[in-house]
Amino acid sequence: MLALDVLDEKNALKIAEETCEYIDSIKIGYPLVLGTDLKIIEKIKNLTGKEVICDFKVADIPSTNEKIAELTLNYADGIICQGFVGKDSVSAILNIARKKNKKVIVVTEMSHPGATEYLKNVANDMADMAKNLKVDGIVAPSTRVERLKELKKIVGDLFIISPGVGAQGGDLKEVLNVLDENDYVIIGRAIYESENPKESAKNYKMQISTF
Amino acid sequence: MLALDVLDEKNALKIAEETCEYIDSIKIGYPLVLGTDLKIIEKIKNLTGKEVICDFKVADIPSTNEKIAELTLNYADGIICQGFVGKDSVSAILNIARKKNKKVIVVTEMSHPGATEYLKNVANDMADMAKNLKVDGIVAPSTRVERLKELKKIVGDLFIISPGVGAQGGDLKEVLNVLDENDYVIIGRAIYESENPKESAKNYKMQISTF
Repeated sequence: MLALDVLDEKNALKIAEETCEYIDSIKIGYPLVLGTDLKIIEKIKNLTGKEVICDFKVADIPSTNEKIAELTLNYADGIICQGFVGKDSVSAILNIARKKNKKVIVVTEMSHPGATEYLKNVANDMADMAKNLKVDGIVAPSTRVERLKELKKIVGDLFIISPGVGAQGGDLKEVLNVLDENDYVIIGRAIYESENPKESAKNYKMQISTF
Repeated sequence: MLALDVLDEKNALKIAEETCEYIDSIKIGYPLVLGTDLKIIEKIKNLTGKEVICDFKVADIPSTNEKIAELTLNYADGIICQGFVGKDSVSAILNIARKKNKKVIVVTEMSHPGATEYLKNVANDMADMAKNLKVDGIVAPSTRVERLKELKKIVGDLFIISPGVGAQGGDLKEVLNVLDENDYVIIGRAIYESENPKESAKNYKMQISTF
């Protein structure tokens, strides 16, 4: 899964087009959408034929989460939300997604150092919540492989999308040892900041498929 | 502080114009920005002369938080972020805001029921973090006045913005007993969903100023 965290449309579409034969799915975040608008999703989908997931880490009260999901899932194939705001906030998004036949992915533990301050202590509980709510997948960190393993065990058949390989220092092979064919490794800066994004994407694809 | 959580530009500008003489500040969220774009901020500011705070509850890794803050604070006077993602993520936003002379407000405990699951247990620690980082203010709930009191005590001279009065059931007088003149009561649906937003805003203004 390519994390396409660039800021302008031209660059985003160029990288998406160049790399799309080597990726399964594209994840975009607020920076790109604030730099353009939600219609960028349609453009990426038309150009690449790939699924687009909005990594908005939605973290608001239920009524606001609902509005964000409604607007976003008019375009995107799935949306990523934070679990720490509680079950009611996640359910609000899930209700909208189910009506539109779209995916909901819940963040458990993030990949950056700050995630060890508050998130890590409750990540297992949030993984449990995600499983009980029957969301589609969770986000779990490639930067802490032991935690990734533990979270995968908790959620069972939910898929995992895992950021942290590449710029954040996670080791691809260690991560692939934990994940299975339904899961996704997220690569962002190591592709979109590379001098040759296409080559980078091809190289990661090869490493993953020959593993 | 008016929470202007409507979805379309026409409605947003109409309510902002009608109510602006009775409010101090306007808070907008992702629903309005996704329904329009960031330039809506400029339009609201030009029309009302009021400060606009973006309640984006930013909750990402530092590099992404930085990009979101950079884009948002080109327009808005301040940005609201989640403390739950840790000190590095909040600092990333604060660094951008300081350069642009804009405000950063950190969510400690939210006003909805789900906030008691994970947020409540660490809200005091996050208030401590906010104070130590010297951000400008925190978000604390009008729906749990005892918690509001406790959080205010922790942050001392940081201002508080407090949601939960009105549609969420918080009692205005109880809340005003805790807050002081530097703090903000947030009113959203009780104004923008009212049949007469102007009258509603005027009514709240009167209750607050005669308290």
